[in-house]
Amino acid sequence: MTHPALDLILQRTSINRFDPSHEIDDATLRELVRYAGEAPSAYNFQNWRFIAVRTPSQKARLCDMAYGQKKVVEASVIFIVCGRLQPHLGLRAALRPFMAAGHVDGATVDAMVDSATQGYADDPQMQRDEAIRSASLAAMTLMLAAQAMGLASGPMIGFDPAQVSAGFGLGADEVPVLLLTVGRPAPGNWPRKPRRPAADVLEIV
Amino acid sequence: MTHPALDLILQRTSINRFDPSHEIDDATLRELVRYAGEAPSAYNFQNWRFIAVRTPSQKARLCDMAYGQKKVVEASVIFIVCGRLQPHLGLRAALRPFMAAGHVDGATVDAMVDSATQGYADDPQMQRDEAIRSASLAAMTLMLAAQAMGLASGPMIGFDPAQVSAGFGLGADEVPVLLLTVGRPAPGNWPRKPRRPAADVLEIV
Repeated sequence: MTHPALDLILQRTSINRFDPSHEIDDATLRELVRYAGEAPSAYNFQNWRFIAVRTPSQKARLCDMAYGQKKVVEASVIFIVCGRLQPHLGLRAALRPFMAAGHVDGATVDAMVDSATQGYADDPQMQRDEAIRSASLAAMTLMLAAQAMGLASGPMIGFDPAQVSAGFGLGADEVPVLLLTVGRPAPGNWPRKPRRPAADVLEIV
Repeated sequence: MTHPALDLILQRTSINRFDPSHEIDDATLRELVRYAGEAPSAYNFQNWRFIAVRTPSQKARLCDMAYGQKKVVEASVIFIVCGRLQPHLGLRAALRPFMAAGHVDGATVDAMVDSATQGYADDPQMQRDEAIRSASLAAMTLMLAAQAMGLASGPMIGFDPAQVSAGFGLGADEVPVLLLTVGRPAPGNWPRKPRRPAADVLEIV
């Protein structure tokens, strides 16, 4: 018997048409983000942040920044999934609960912060890569969690990053990695797109 | 009742110590990569590739390129998860099964390829972002699929990308986005690291 999560992976599909009458409450938003935050990240940086755009007026603003795509007003919520540059600066705070639980001591945390600082501080491309990588791992987890909670989703890169950063108050060290629409499907979505066979994308050595 | 996939997300943790006696067969590798390929990507690019490093001699080579980290020889398999630059060049082939199924016609595919070419062809940073984003979405799906199949995993960025690219024959348009160890846990792994509370990473507007 296969685990139900495997069926979920096969069922999840990105949709474009959402039921505009469906609403998502605060508790559900928190649940979605809680699961997203369970994704792994280098050093356990957790260098991500989620802005949940839910009110009609804010959706309308975001829609303008996303070339007027209707799904941005029709979805129940649109997450602006942000990745943080300079992840080493947030590491000490990110590891605090792990230290508080007694799993690492202060010297170990110091060593991790030193190591991360050496690796990232002077390497803007590595910072950007890490922001995109961490935020994408979290976004994928959020999409599967949404599916498991009976919702549908759709990741989007069709938006103006500078407008979103300025318009929604992203920090100077934050990159909007993708938008993620979440809600209930309306009729008219495309069928799930078939994938390339594993043989085309897998090499065994 | 919550969906079992949600528990799976909470249970998955990145491990460093693997049982070196555990082996993974070809069919399981194909299954893992099949699920990974179900991740979404812009335009359905599927701009990823997976090199499964499984033989002792190849693991030893990769271990040298990963600063001698023992998990690279002890895990059952280490996937080199690659993202492809110039994703527009592979789009027509990636969409062929969708067109063959009758969901889009040739003119629609042409329009999608034109749009992607305009968006990516002259923008190296966007190409790199997309390579990292797509490969990360696929890697996260692979980690959860592995967990659902009773395996454990650990993503790694501690390796020399130039050495891995040269040593494992990555194409000039491929980026090694992360290494992903997969296998059975051995004793001595750290406990799962607690995460920042949702209140710290979620803003609702």
